[in-house]
Amino acid sequence: MTTAKAYAAAGATTPLAGTTIPRRDPADHDLQIEILYCGICHSDLHTARNEWSSIMPTVYPCVPGHEIVGRVTHTGSAVTKFKVGDLAGVGCLVDSDRTCPNCQAGLEQFCPAMVLTYNFPDRHLGGITYGGYSESIVVDENFVLRIPQNLELAGAAPLLCAGITTYSPLRHWGVTRGKKVGIVGLGGLGHMAVKFARALGAHVVVFTTSPGKRDDALRLGADEVVISRDANEMQKHAGSFDFILDAVSADHDLNTYVQLLARDGNLTLVGAPEKPLPVSAFGLLFARRSLSGSLIGGIAETQEMLDFCGEQNITADVEVIPIQKLNEAYERMLKSDVKYRFSIDMASLKAE
Amino acid sequence: MTTAKAYAAAGATTPLAGTTIPRRDPADHDLQIEILYCGICHSDLHTARNEWSSIMPTVYPCVPGHEIVGRVTHTGSAVTKFKVGDLAGVGCLVDSDRTCPNCQAGLEQFCPAMVLTYNFPDRHLGGITYGGYSESIVVDENFVLRIPQNLELAGAAPLLCAGITTYSPLRHWGVTRGKKVGIVGLGGLGHMAVKFARALGAHVVVFTTSPGKRDDALRLGADEVVISRDANEMQKHAGSFDFILDAVSADHDLNTYVQLLARDGNLTLVGAPEKPLPVSAFGLLFARRSLSGSLIGGIAETQEMLDFCGEQNITADVEVIPIQKLNEAYERMLKSDVKYRFSIDMASLKAE
Repeated sequence: MTTAKAYAAAGATTPLAGTTIPRRDPADHDLQIEILYCGICHSDLHTARNEWSSIMPTVYPCVPGHEIVGRVTHTGSAVTKFKVGDLAGVGCLVDSDRTCPNCQAGLEQFCPAMVLTYNFPDRHLGGITYGGYSESIVVDENFVLRIPQNLELAGAAPLLCAGITTYSPLRHWGVTRGKKVGIVGLGGLGHMAVKFARALGAHVVVFTTSPGKRDDALRLGADEVVISRDANEMQKHAGSFDFILDAVSADHDLNTYVQLLARDGNLTLVGAPEKPLPVSAFGLLFARRSLSGSLIGGIAETQEMLDFCGEQNITADVEVIPIQKLNEAYERMLKSDVKYRFSIDMASLKAE
Repeated sequence: MTTAKAYAAAGATTPLAGTTIPRRDPADHDLQIEILYCGICHSDLHTARNEWSSIMPTVYPCVPGHEIVGRVTHTGSAVTKFKVGDLAGVGCLVDSDRTCPNCQAGLEQFCPAMVLTYNFPDRHLGGITYGGYSESIVVDENFVLRIPQNLELAGAAPLLCAGITTYSPLRHWGVTRGKKVGIVGLGGLGHMAVKFARALGAHVVVFTTSPGKRDDALRLGADEVVISRDANEMQKHAGSFDFILDAVSADHDLNTYVQLLARDGNLTLVGAPEKPLPVSAFGLLFARRSLSGSLIGGIAETQEMLDFCGEQNITADVEVIPIQKLNEAYERMLKSDVKYRFSIDMASLKAE
């Protein structure tokens, strides 16, 4: 067992601060990875503050971070997929049972025995898993992703969660050239969805409540921007969308968007509003529409997404911060004051 | 123009009573059909009583009925698909534009210019269309279905609405041998869904609030019956269904059923509760589940369903009544006091 510098929350109301955590010695199939950048996901904040206590209570100290990009520094004796010096990515998952029907289907995110990258029972060291707000991590090579060489690393980190979370449903629901696709909410997830939908060849419409985001949406790849509070503008798109990705976690009216779907159109939620959302059966019946959810993606599809990003030179738009600005970044994230994701430069932690 | 005996509601609170309505002379592509049986659908009652005034106000006099089985008595000069004496069925649709993408896809029920069998603007005679509570009807042959000779006619009538409404989503969502299928609600729609799901080879589980319906559900073809108020019994089926058809129009908790779906499972609503139903995003996200609606079916699929019923000898379980008992049947339908559909013997109207 070794130790590593990390930033941890000691309690739900305590700011995150520097500490030291244990990391296991690499086993046969493990990679030890020096973390170069780690994106900040809203889940990190929810977990650090124990806001998901009803489904997954937080165990302290808590080291969040599941948008990890780094470099392999050590390989276990049986490792075949990576060598020392390779770029490496780690997302939301660090293990699963690998044998259940979901794992067999490449959908480890639905494995009943999946292991999340942080705040999840750690089968190796006991206690819980510690995430990417750290100088290093040890992960089984089967849960480590290859990062294309051409990608800017700070912007590649958020691909490991925000990227796959939006890429997976776009692919699952057949978004391609000739499809009309809506993206609801232009934040960390939404801005990735716009880039992917555009790169997949779709006609992309961004829905936002903020007229100020219009120019940015167009710059990111939107063909059209609709201010969702303008009922007339919304009505013009009634019954016309093949697919809508809804990345809004705040309470909002889904029925407005269901009405915009064409026959057999699908609205997929990737944000998870806390309270149940009222859904009108009529909206679904009258054009055989459907409403779905999607949760990150499996390992194989995450690699497919990263390779696609390499080909298309897609990364997240990030604001790079030193880890010492983490708590400030959390506050700014709550105000949507970031375009569009924070990425922690881990050199700042090593220098502490 | 000819006239025909019919039963009509003169107003929202008036019992239906005998009257005379106009029917057009058969045009080149029309069939004149002597109506032998007409099923009673809950939509008939909603329309007769103007309960859907917000989406489709009722014009009086109103002649409901869209589960029509009869015999061809006259064919227009250009008719090719039927001859005098053939059995003929008419469902919820009597016309559409035949050119839009939905019609091209055989989904006339989503055509923006579809014409419903009753209470819909009549392009031939003006006024509104009159349905099947009548001794005869005139319909374009392209919206008339062939009825297999071996089917008992009183029980075949409800296939035209209750049958296709349940058959279409079962087929659309790939119900077949090896699939686990749930049916929520054992009424006019639900009992047809059980028969179809069983005939398609699925493992069929009926959910009902009434323990008294257990034996009947098993007789109709269910492999298992779950009393939906028993949380323990429900929990045993968590995450196991490929598909659930929800035929309940009353307010009820969808999330309970969403939780029973396997990964990528679908819950389709064919009932339409008046108020929006609260849906938890988490239930959809955690296994990529989806919630959909379905509305009757297109003409080609209705014929496919009828042919399937012919092969499998499937009809609805009906209580045959004379038309003079129509108002009493409505009251009994409101109390679910029918197993499982009323079918009007139209000889009783001719004898008036």
